[in-house]
Amino acid sequence: MLTAGVDIGGTKLLAVAATGKGEIVAERRQATPAGADAVLSAIALVVADLMAAAPGIAAVGVGLPGLVDLDGAIHYAPNLPGFVGVPARERLAARLPVPVAVDNDANVAALGEVLHGAGRGRREVLVVTLGTGIGGGLIINGTVNRGGFGLAAEIGHFTVDRDGPVCACGERGHWEALASGTALGRRAREWAARGDAPGVLARAGGVVEAITGHEAGESALAGEADGRAILTEHAGDVALGLGGLVNIFDPELVVIGGGLVHLGEALIGPIRAALPAHVEAADRRTVPPVVAAALGEQAGAVGAAALARTLVPPP
Amino acid sequence: MLTAGVDIGGTKLLAVAATGKGEIVAERRQATPAGADAVLSAIALVVADLMAAAPGIAAVGVGLPGLVDLDGAIHYAPNLPGFVGVPARERLAARLPVPVAVDNDANVAALGEVLHGAGRGRREVLVVTLGTGIGGGLIINGTVNRGGFGLAAEIGHFTVDRDGPVCACGERGHWEALASGTALGRRAREWAARGDAPGVLARAGGVVEAITGHEAGESALAGEADGRAILTEHAGDVALGLGGLVNIFDPELVVIGGGLVHLGEALIGPIRAALPAHVEAADRRTVPPVVAAALGEQAGAVGAAALARTLVPPP
Repeated sequence: MLTAGVDIGGTKLLAVAATGKGEIVAERRQATPAGADAVLSAIALVVADLMAAAPGIAAVGVGLPGLVDLDGAIHYAPNLPGFVGVPARERLAARLPVPVAVDNDANVAALGEVLHGAGRGRREVLVVTLGTGIGGGLIINGTVNRGGFGLAAEIGHFTVDRDGPVCACGERGHWEALASGTALGRRAREWAARGDAPGVLARAGGVVEAITGHEAGESALAGEADGRAILTEHAGDVALGLGGLVNIFDPELVVIGGGLVHLGEALIGPIRAALPAHVEAADRRTVPPVVAAALGEQAGAVGAAALARTLVPPP
Repeated sequence: MLTAGVDIGGTKLLAVAATGKGEIVAERRQATPAGADAVLSAIALVVADLMAAAPGIAAVGVGLPGLVDLDGAIHYAPNLPGFVGVPARERLAARLPVPVAVDNDANVAALGEVLHGAGRGRREVLVVTLGTGIGGGLIINGTVNRGGFGLAAEIGHFTVDRDGPVCACGERGHWEALASGTALGRRAREWAARGDAPGVLARAGGVVEAITGHEAGESALAGEADGRAILTEHAGDVALGLGGLVNIFDPELVVIGGGLVHLGEALIGPIRAALPAHVEAADRRTVPPVVAAALGEQAGAVGAAALARTLVPPP
C-alpha cells in the first residue's frame, strides 16, 4: 500500500509517496506559499502530482506547524500566517479523492521516527525537535499521544526560568526561549558582545548582530574553543528542561530532531553528559539514551504518510 | 468481585476491601511501621485481616511513595526509609495467597480518581497531588501511564525557577519546591518574617518558625486577608507549573488532590483564575477545568484496589 505524506514548514513544503515500510517512492518539494488558501491548494496539487507519479496512493497525511485539534482544524499557528481557525482537514477532504488526516508537524515527525527511524521498536519515546522553536511528540504505548483535544506535546512551553527571556508565545522563561536554535543565536551574540566569541564573530563578518545559531554551530563543528563552549552551555539548558521531561515521562529513549540535529555529537554529546544531573535519582534508575533523529528533514513527510495509513482499513 | 487496596503513606497505612465499583466494604488503618520488613509484614497481616472480614478478595494492590518500577521494586523512596532497592511486589507475592501488584502511591490515587472519583468517564486526565511534595498521575487513554520503566509522573520535579529554592530531591527550583504544601509553609514564614502575616502568625503562637502550611490555610479559610493573599500568591506558583503541564499534556481535566485539597475553593479558585495566563493560546482553545479530587484520603487505597482488579482474569 502507498500513502502520501505532506510536511508543511514555515518556508518549505515536502511531499512524499511512501510504502507501508516508510520507503519513499516519489518526492516533491517547493516553497510554502503565503496564506491558508494557497497552502491548501498547493497540498491538493502536489498530492495529485504524486498520485500521477505513484499510482495507488490510498490516503494522505499532512503535518502543519501549529495547534491542530482532533478534527484537523488549526487553532494557533504563529509560523504559518493565515491559518488560525482554519478547518484544514475538512477543507482538504473536499478537494482530495482519498481520505486525509491532519496533525501537528512535530507529532507526525515523531511518528515517523518511532515507526521508521531512531525510535523503531520502542513503546515510550520522547521526541524533541530543536529548531526555530522547540517542538515535540510524545510516543506513549507505541503511538502519538495527542491529549484531550489534540493539542498535546507543546513541550517547549513550560517555564524553566521565571526571570528568563520572553518566549515566542509571550510567556517568560519557557524552555524554548532558552534552548531552541533561535536561543542559541541569542546566546552566541551575548558571548560575542562581551568579547568571548572571536571564532563565531569572524564567521558573521565581525558583526555581532549578524550572528545566528548557524555561526555558533559551524564554529563548534570546526573545533573552535568559543563555538564549542557556547554549544556546551546551550546543551546544559537543553538538558535542564529535558531532565524535567524525563522525570515526568520516564521515556525509554529520547530522540533529538529539528534543525540543530545536523550538529550531531557536538550537540548531543554535551546534552547526554548534562542530563543525569537533572534526572531524579539518576544513580538508581535507567537514564534514557539520547540519540539523534534518523530520518532528518524527511521525518515529517514520512510520518505524515504513516499517519495516513491509519485511515486505510486493513485488507 | 472484591479486591484489597493498601495505601502506604509516610505516617499511616490505609487498607480497604472494595467492590468492582469502588465501594468500600471493609477498612483498616494503622501507623506505618519503620523499615521495609515491618511494612511488608504489616501489609500481609492487614490483608489477612481484610480477607477474614470480607471473604472473596481475589487480588491485592499496593501504593507506595517512591519510584516503583514495572516489576514493583522500589528504586527511591525518600519518605519511606529502608525501601531503596527492595523488590516489594516479589516479597509480598511470597507471603500473600492471591496475586499482588505494586505501584507508586500517586499513580494508584490517580487511578482511583479516574475510575471512581472526579475523573470518572474521562480519558486524558492530569492528577496533581499537593502535599508534603507534589506527586501526580498521568491518565492517558483511560489508564495510568507509567512510562518506559514504571517511574513516570514525577511531575513535581521539573525546573520552573532555576534560581529558586532547593527541592527535596536536591535540584534547585523544581515546581515542588515552589508549590507544595511544604512550600506554602515557607512562603507563609517569609510573609510573617517581614510583618505581613499577622493572622497567620497569631495562629502559630506568634512564633514565625512555628508556621506551616496548615496555619496559612486555616487563616485563608477564616477569611483573613493575609492568609488569603498568601494562598493566592501560592496558587499563582501552582498555576505556573500547571500551565506548562497543560501545554505538554493537553488534558481534558485537571484533578487536584493531596493534603492541600481540604482548602477547597480557597485554593482551587485562585489556581483556576491564574491558569489561563500560563496556557499557550488560552483564548483559542479549551483550557481544562480544574477540580478537587473526590475520594479524599481514600483515593490511594481505592485506586490500589482497582489496580488489583487488573490481575484478575475476567469471568
